[in-house]
Amino acid sequence: MSETSTLIAADDPVLGTDFATEMLRQMRAMDSYGTYDTYTPAKILEPFILTKAMKREIPIIGDPDEITIARVKAFYNAIAALIEKECKLMAVPMLNLTHEGFGRAIITVGKLVVADRTLRDVHRFGFESLSKMKDEADKLLSVALTLIGEHAAVAGL
Amino acid sequence: MSETSTLIAADDPVLGTDFATEMLRQMRAMDSYGTYDTYTPAKILEPFILTKAMKREIPIIGDPDEITIARVKAFYNAIAALIEKECKLMAVPMLNLTHEGFGRAIITVGKLVVADRTLRDVHRFGFESLSKMKDEADKLLSVALTLIGEHAAVAGL
Repeated sequence: MSETSTLIAADDPVLGTDFATEMLRQMRAMDSYGTYDTYTPAKILEPFILTKAMKREIPIIGDPDEITIARVKAFYNAIAALIEKECKLMAVPMLNLTHEGFGRAIITVGKLVVADRTLRDVHRFGFESLSKMKDEADKLLSVALTLIGEHAAVAGL
Repeated sequence: MSETSTLIAADDPVLGTDFATEMLRQMRAMDSYGTYDTYTPAKILEPFILTKAMKREIPIIGDPDEITIARVKAFYNAIAALIEKECKLMAVPMLNLTHEGFGRAIITVGKLVVADRTLRDVHRFGFESLSKMKDEADKLLSVALTLIGEHAAVAGL
C-alpha cells in the first residue's frame, strides 16, 4: 500500500486545523499495530473521503464492516473532544447502529443532547472532500456550542 | 414449558399497574411467533425476575445473548412509553452495549436526557421480584418527569 494519499493533498490547509489534529489522534488511538506510523496525515484520513464516483461503485444496500463503524466512531469522538475543549465540560458520544447500518449518533453534555444525527447507509460513510468533512464537523460543533450557551444549566447537570 | 409462573404470583397487584401493562405490550411486540398467546401475564414477565440464588448460578463474566438484550430493550422502551404518556412529548430510548454486556441506556425527550443508566453484566439482567422491578421503573420515571418539569424548554426542543 502506498503511503501517500491521492484524495487529500499533502499541503491541504485543513490538515493544519484543530479538527484534523483531533481526527488524527482518534485514528492513531485505534491503530493497535502501528500501521499508521509510516503514514502521512493525509494518508491516515484518506479512508474518510468518498467521492461521488467512489460512492456509486458501492452497492446501495450493504452491512457496514467493523472498520467503517470504527471510522464513524472516530468522527463523532473527535467532535465530542472538540466540544469538550471549547466548553470545558465532558462531552460523551454514543453511537447506535443496527447491523444493516442504520441508526443514530448523539453527543451529550450533562443532560443536554448537543448533537443528534440519524445515520443511514453507514457502509457508505464518507465525505466528498476533506474540506466537506470539516464543514460537517464545524456545523455540528457550532450547533452544539450554541445549545450549551443557551442551556448552560442543563449542560452542567 | 409450563404456562404458569413460579416466580410471580398470578394475583400479584403489580400486574395490574400501568407499568406491567406496558411491559406486557413491549414483550408481545417482540413475540413474532405468538409463543406468548397461551401465557399468563405473570409467565410473560417471569424472565425479568432473577433472585439472588438464581444470579449466583450465572457466571460473573459472560456475553449477553440476543434474548437478554431484547429484554433490556423492552424494559427501557416501557419506561420511555410511560414517560411519553405522562408528558405528551416523544421519549426516545437508546441502548448501547459492547458484546461483553457493558454499556449505557439513555432516554431523551427533545434535547433533554431524562434517564441515563450505566449497564454492567447485562447477561445477568434481572430483578429480585416484580415489585423491585416496578420500584426501579418508578424511580426512573419520577426522575425523568422532574427533569422535564424543570427544563421544559429543552425537553420541547
